Amino acid sequence: MSERAGTTASGPSTARLAPGPDRDADRVARVALTWLVEPGNRIVHRLVARHGAVDALDTLLTGDAPDQGLRAAVAARLRAGDPYRVAELALVRAERLGARIATPHDPEWPAQLDDLIRLDGLGGDRRVDRETQPPLCLWVRGSWPLDQALSSSVAVVGSRAATAYGNHVATDLAYGLAERDWTVVSGGAYGIDAAAHRGALTYGGITVAVLACGVDRPYPAGNAALFERIADSGLLVSEWPPGSEPHRHRFLIRNRVIAAATAGTVMVEASARSGATSTLRRAVALKRPAMVVPGPVTSAMSVGCHDMLREHPSTRVVTGLPHVLDEIGRIGLDLAPLARGPVDVRDDLDPDSAQLLEVVPARRTIGAEEIAARAGIELRTALRKLALLTDLGLLRRASDGYALVGRPRRRK
Amino acid sequence: MSERAGTTASGPSTARLAPGPDRDADRVARVALTWLVEPGNRIVHRLVARHGAVDALDTLLTGDAPDQGLRAAVAARLRAGDPYRVAELALVRAERLGARIATPHDPEWPAQLDDLIRLDGLGGDRRVDRETQPPLCLWVRGSWPLDQALSSSVAVVGSRAATAYGNHVATDLAYGLAERDWTVVSGGAYGIDAAAHRGALTYGGITVAVLACGVDRPYPAGNAALFERIADSGLLVSEWPPGSEPHRHRFLIRNRVIAAATAGTVMVEASARSGATSTLRRAVALKRPAMVVPGPVTSAMSVGCHDMLREHPSTRVVTGLPHVLDEIGRIGLDLAPLARGPVDVRDDLDPDSAQLLEVVPARRTIGAEEIAARAGIELRTALRKLALLTDLGLLRRASDGYALVGRPRRRK
Repeated sequence: MSERAGTTASGPSTARLAPGPDRDADRVARVALTWLVEPGNRIVHRLVARHGAVDALDTLLTGDAPDQGLRAAVAARLRAGDPYRVAELALVRAERLGARIATPHDPEWPAQLDDLIRLDGLGGDRRVDRETQPPLCLWVRGSWPLDQALSSSVAVVGSRAATAYGNHVATDLAYGLAERDWTVVSGGAYGIDAAAHRGALTYGGITVAVLACGVDRPYPAGNAALFERIADSGLLVSEWPPGSEPHRHRFLIRNRVIAAATAGTVMVEASARSGATSTLRRAVALKRPAMVVPGPVTSAMSVGCHDMLREHPSTRVVTGLPHVLDEIGRIGLDLAPLARGPVDVRDDLDPDSAQLLEVVPARRTIGAEEIAARAGIELRTALRKLALLTDLGLLRRASDGYALVGRPRRRK
Repeated sequence: MSERAGTTASGPSTARLAPGPDRDADRVARVALTWLVEPGNRIVHRLVARHGAVDALDTLLTGDAPDQGLRAAVAARLRAGDPYRVAELALVRAERLGARIATPHDPEWPAQLDDLIRLDGLGGDRRVDRETQPPLCLWVRGSWPLDQALSSSVAVVGSRAATAYGNHVATDLAYGLAERDWTVVSGGAYGIDAAAHRGALTYGGITVAVLACGVDRPYPAGNAALFERIADSGLLVSEWPPGSEPHRHRFLIRNRVIAAATAGTVMVEASARSGATSTLRRAVALKRPAMVVPGPVTSAMSVGCHDMLREHPSTRVVTGLPHVLDEIGRIGLDLAPLARGPVDVRDDLDPDSAQLLEVVPARRTIGAEEIAARAGIELRTALRKLALLTDLGLLRRASDGYALVGRPRRRK
């Protein structure tokens, strides 16, 4: 096994592979590795960090994995198929449904996910203590670059069996976050997850659903329409390739991504031992703000919330948007993408185009007529200029109008 | 001004004055001082600690108080009457209505109140920062000795304008505390205070209302029947002499007594800036468990609770009796009265009487028939023995049966 260029033990996932055969091979290997061993596995992650994904895969396939359990798991999985073939098929299938794969070598990779390297069973859940490490790759549906969508984001999580109270609080909070240009991140479950996405969507904000199954697979089926709306104006994200089943243990593995992708996690309602508490515990372990919305002590759906407040002194009571903004304020800035260079196609725009671009809101789509009205420019002219701005890659068409492409404006 | 025996600067309030002229004079002086200057005053407390109550009163009456504001306040008050005369009248009036005065020289004085000496504007409320010191005396209605009633006690406080949720939680919690032989302590207001007393009374436990007016003065009038029930099976307590008005600022001064008398304070519901938060802040400053029951974030009546949890890291979320018992467990033991000597009239009882006494519950009244049934002794015999036990001062008659007199059994 040879060391690969650009993949040293110190931080391979932040190095960028230029497009080309090397990156393609790395991509296929990461997909294959994620299929071969459940994501987040510490040994696999260490192999990839030291030797690169291609050699790590090679090591596993030749039965040289430095762990008996891992070798057995790989052998069992290999009976189900050829990982290269599975990976190629997954990439083809993804392209067909408009999904893409993102890896740490892509510019859109959210660097904050690498904080998971610090999680070594810490803040853990014994059921998934081996699966604490950063994702090797992420499948993405939606037009926002991952890093931009997640640069200022907050996780809003909670129970499936939410009460009217919890749904109200989650919706309200997510709406308020969207209004302040924060992306809302959650899972795809009924209850608090769905309420959070709906709140953000109602404002027209960005919302990201991190799934424990393929991004083409509406689970639960009753949220299918919601997932389409999220894919249209936000992102559907998953570590598992299209077509993957939402196995029970995957929700816990997935939760670490929600905690690590965001500036903080708010738990709105949770029964005792709810899965949502695992997301919050990951946030605690990552030293991200771990926030809890209290509720009536008479409600079984708040027991998990109150337990977390009692057991984890670093969790904080939040009763609404102002408290959440207080907690995530500084962290949010730290996660903001680095400012780009001064050369910008915007500098060369004609005044009308510049004016139109100026009035497009930072993080939601807006109809052409509203843009024209806001800019005070005649609709016909506006439509022509909007086409130009779209061609320049500054705007993108969405089903209900136009949205900004590129770095969102900083929130106030 | 001469030093008085037994009253040194180090701890006069724990020294015991034997019954007699000295104690009577001290008693009158304490009542007069409390009338002359609102209780808890730091300068007055220091004068009493150094020179005794009689000389302290003398110092104030001769205009020698070491503080300009205090001299002015005393002068103003003196225009309203003669403090000796007022005190004598109050003592007569109290005796007529079955109330008594307790001072630090009495065996029933609850020693934990002296912890207030440590409060020097700390944890404070700027409105009553001068009034942080222990009471000079307490007016008491009810048959339990103060120290015994308060030895294992918990404060349950909250808003007057409680919701159905808050009333339910307070009642339930107080019932559970009474069931575990904890005394419930609160104010006399509508809402959480009244709900807490009712919960304890429903079980038949001891409940103590610490009032900001005279113990003969039902305030609010709507709680008059409740106060009678409390006086019958628990205690009504006040620093202010019978007939005193419940002036607004007195509630805040009173709150320090509730916090200091108890092993911990639970705040059930509180609006923003509710007076109940001052009791909780006193508990924090006294390093007693300061507990908060969370509620719906949509409820204005829980805003004060959530604010306290956010602002005071030492406050703890409690959702019910088990959590409260967790928090007060150790502290409660520390406040327990010292074990008495081995000589006990109980040791000489005949077997039937001993058996009957054994089955009387520690902290509630019980009917003669139930006692007889529990003890497995014929009712006629039981009634005779119960009369004997009452004569021996081991039981007392209450309106609805018999209750233990003397040190309550330790709770489990």
